[in-house]
Amino acid sequence: MTQPRIVLYSALLCPFAHRARIALKASGAVYETVEIDLKNKPAWYAPNINPASKVPAISYGAPPDSDVTKPPAGTFLLPESALVVQFIASLYPQIDYKDPIIRAKASFAQLQWDNLVAGRWRKYQFEGSEQDLEPLLEGLKQFSDSVPEEILGDEYGVADIILGPFVTRLFIFANEDIGKWAPGSGPKLVSALSGPEYDKLRKLGAKLDKWPALQETIDNDILVKKFTEILKNH
Amino acid sequence: MTQPRIVLYSALLCPFAHRARIALKASGAVYETVEIDLKNKPAWYAPNINPASKVPAISYGAPPDSDVTKPPAGTFLLPESALVVQFIASLYPQIDYKDPIIRAKASFAQLQWDNLVAGRWRKYQFEGSEQDLEPLLEGLKQFSDSVPEEILGDEYGVADIILGPFVTRLFIFANEDIGKWAPGSGPKLVSALSGPEYDKLRKLGAKLDKWPALQETIDNDILVKKFTEILKNH
Repeated sequence: MTQPRIVLYSALLCPFAHRARIALKASGAVYETVEIDLKNKPAWYAPNINPASKVPAISYGAPPDSDVTKPPAGTFLLPESALVVQFIASLYPQIDYKDPIIRAKASFAQLQWDNLVAGRWRKYQFEGSEQDLEPLLEGLKQFSDSVPEEILGDEYGVADIILGPFVTRLFIFANEDIGKWAPGSGPKLVSALSGPEYDKLRKLGAKLDKWPALQETIDNDILVKKFTEILKNH
Repeated sequence: MTQPRIVLYSALLCPFAHRARIALKASGAVYETVEIDLKNKPAWYAPNINPASKVPAISYGAPPDSDVTKPPAGTFLLPESALVVQFIASLYPQIDYKDPIIRAKASFAQLQWDNLVAGRWRKYQFEGSEQDLEPLLEGLKQFSDSVPEEILGDEYGVADIILGPFVTRLFIFANEDIGKWAPGSGPKLVSALSGPEYDKLRKLGAKLDKWPALQETIDNDILVKKFTEILKNH
């Protein structure tokens, strides 16, 4: 049986859209990508695909030759990166954890990132005040504590998909010193993360560096170039 | 094989803890409940069960006669209501949706409640300014739009568990006029919800009213009595 048609509405720089690309790549699904220019969104996008006007979104089951800018009525449309990943994992259970305890531990680590790291990192990268470093380090420590040993082996799962784009970007931007901070603050952050309390964070980063599904769906050079520009104008 | 021991740390009034009670009841799991007094939390709770000091949390697999206030090392402890429900659904898949599309639609409705209703409802109930009604009604309309027809039948699933405590409380508090608002504002809200744009919200409420797993894990009289007091002192 042919797999129903999957169209991903994506944007190269967006870490949320990156989650969807990794999930589709890791699952072995056949899919088409429609690149959405976030600075100049096409007029059809919000009314026809996602009223919230964000990426990613996917369409599932549109007829093979139908217009990707206007899926016919009855096509299943789904926005929100976490839901898209969950949906893909429902279709391709091999990318999800088999053990309920490991799955729950991995979900808790994702929540710790959302609650304790995401906002603090954005603040530090885009405002870069020295006083924002300590709360970020504390959040990264608690996140690192929460990463279950069980997901740091050779297997990749949903936590790698959900966390991957964010953990990877944190290390890229810090290493390349791309932030509204005093020059050298990025590498200084990386150096602060060399302590034993961040062991699992570093292991996760190293694991993600070796993952084809992630590396083949990101373009580091463009990311660095574009974010350097974005921060210049921020 | 005996099921590993499940201990739920709960609080009767808390809608998040209510999710966990419904999930356990609906799944047919055998479980013990430890009631945590949220106004006077026991000293052992945060260090031994949940560092965030919130309910619900569960312990899974503690030895049968071990102390519930101090589960031995190696016991799996899990906080956060959505993760607890997800974990229970991993153990008892019969409470989850089989169809990935229905599951995704239900997850989207849950997200709409979180993003568009939860905060607005809390604001309206606890501040009750007339100007807060319109945004709440708009949020409830968008939420109602998002509820998939497929979950409004006779079957109960994860969306009913996640949304149930909140949808049910909204109708109870509005009907009983329990809020920091002008007297009569609660029934006025219920009356505003009689329009066709809220059809699916009302259907969901009616469905939840008939669900033993929900009704047997809530005490409406105590809820009304306690919240009347809480609002008096708020």
